[in-house]
Amino acid sequence: MKHILLTNDDGIDSNGLYALYKELKKIGDVTVVAPHLEKSAVGHAITINEPIRVIEYNRADKFNGYAISGTPADCVKIAVKSLMPKKPDVIVSGINHGSNTATNVLYSGTVSAATEGIILGIPSIASSLLSFDHKADASYAAEFTARLAKTVMEKGLPPDTLLNVNVPAAKKKDIKGVAVTRQGKGRYDEIFEQRYDLNGRAYYWLTGKKMILDTADDIDDVVVLKNFISVTPIQVDMTNYQMLDVLKEWELIP
Amino acid sequence: MKHILLTNDDGIDSNGLYALYKELKKIGDVTVVAPHLEKSAVGHAITINEPIRVIEYNRADKFNGYAISGTPADCVKIAVKSLMPKKPDVIVSGINHGSNTATNVLYSGTVSAATEGIILGIPSIASSLLSFDHKADASYAAEFTARLAKTVMEKGLPPDTLLNVNVPAAKKKDIKGVAVTRQGKGRYDEIFEQRYDLNGRAYYWLTGKKMILDTADDIDDVVVLKNFISVTPIQVDMTNYQMLDVLKEWELIP
Repeated sequence: MKHILLTNDDGIDSNGLYALYKELKKIGDVTVVAPHLEKSAVGHAITINEPIRVIEYNRADKFNGYAISGTPADCVKIAVKSLMPKKPDVIVSGINHGSNTATNVLYSGTVSAATEGIILGIPSIASSLLSFDHKADASYAAEFTARLAKTVMEKGLPPDTLLNVNVPAAKKKDIKGVAVTRQGKGRYDEIFEQRYDLNGRAYYWLTGKKMILDTADDIDDVVVLKNFISVTPIQVDMTNYQMLDVLKEWELIP
Repeated sequence: MKHILLTNDDGIDSNGLYALYKELKKIGDVTVVAPHLEKSAVGHAITINEPIRVIEYNRADKFNGYAISGTPADCVKIAVKSLMPKKPDVIVSGINHGSNTATNVLYSGTVSAATEGIILGIPSIASSLLSFDHKADASYAAEFTARLAKTVMEKGLPPDTLLNVNVPAAKKKDIKGVAVTRQGKGRYDEIFEQRYDLNGRAYYWLTGKKMILDTADDIDDVVVLKNFISVTPIQVDMTNYQMLDVLKEWELIP
């Protein structure tokens, strides 16, 4: 029997996580270790300045698992090091409510859980549904992701690489196919909206509009708009190899 | 006159930040926008679920700047979008107390500030001193980093790339030189230390030992141990290009 670790960044009560749980339990033993509360946009944060709590989560109508007071990366670390009797065969993070394409890969708690998985040497998948509606039907995204998890357990992944999946919020019959993609350059055009509290002191809410800055047809942001599922191989090594030789020509004086 | 944005993740009161401020003001107008409190290991977190406060920081003995209630990435966003009259010519994050080599690049708030800079199209540098002692002398690391910032403003950087600097905690005369490096694979072997609170409930502290998993002489972790300053070009595009063709051969069924 295969062992699967399931986590997310929307929190252990998320519909997306439960949809994925139901599909993954068809292919293996599933351990759920997920944040107690929503931890979106936490990037690859880990909790080192405060203690971590582990709360047993027992829901006869859903599953038994562990709710963690920390971040998605914390969940993966504590699951693998302390909670699971053996190393999982695959780690799956999701189904996230909202896309994790382009530079969102860097901000995403969903992706960071998968990144933590590959740092620990375990093949990992992050999966997101392109709807911010927390009640959106994630069953098809879950079905696809579980099938991909099975394939990953059969074929393996390079040691340094996770798969980042983004599923359009369309009906199964409207999905055109699966595209292997590159991470786009799209980013947010941020606005800080200024408001005043009851004491007249200013505070700011960060908001912004997503800008899609790519047009090539093998980019994550581009294919999902055409109703293709996007699968991007993401690596932990962020070295710009082309730049190494350029920098060696600079006079870097100690 | 060049405009420089200075930030960090140790907080606006950090000695390393002040050491860097003193060197940078020799080469340009410096705006300091840094976290109000320490924000280490926050990765590329941004604050979207709570409001952000901006506190004017006026210290006649040091500098005037802005302390922010959010993360390093928040600092860069709000500085560029709301606080600075024009886009800075360079963003410098540091001097961090503690190394940011290998997989620490992913956890680091220091690096994430520089990453946010390049997402916004501004050449950026992250700089760390290999001593966790918050009173360690960062003046030499600051001197080197300011000189590098000047070079970056002259030569530019590729749009997608920051420079990640790690300076050994040695005396200037003991530094052997500067090495252009790749990001290492070194990571932590984590331990969750279990303790009990006054009500008998368990909690955990995340700790661990850094493991250096590389031996090649062009790796960040390796060169700093030999007393070289490490300069690594880091890019935002995390796509594993070698893996694209492999994945296209997989039967990915929608």
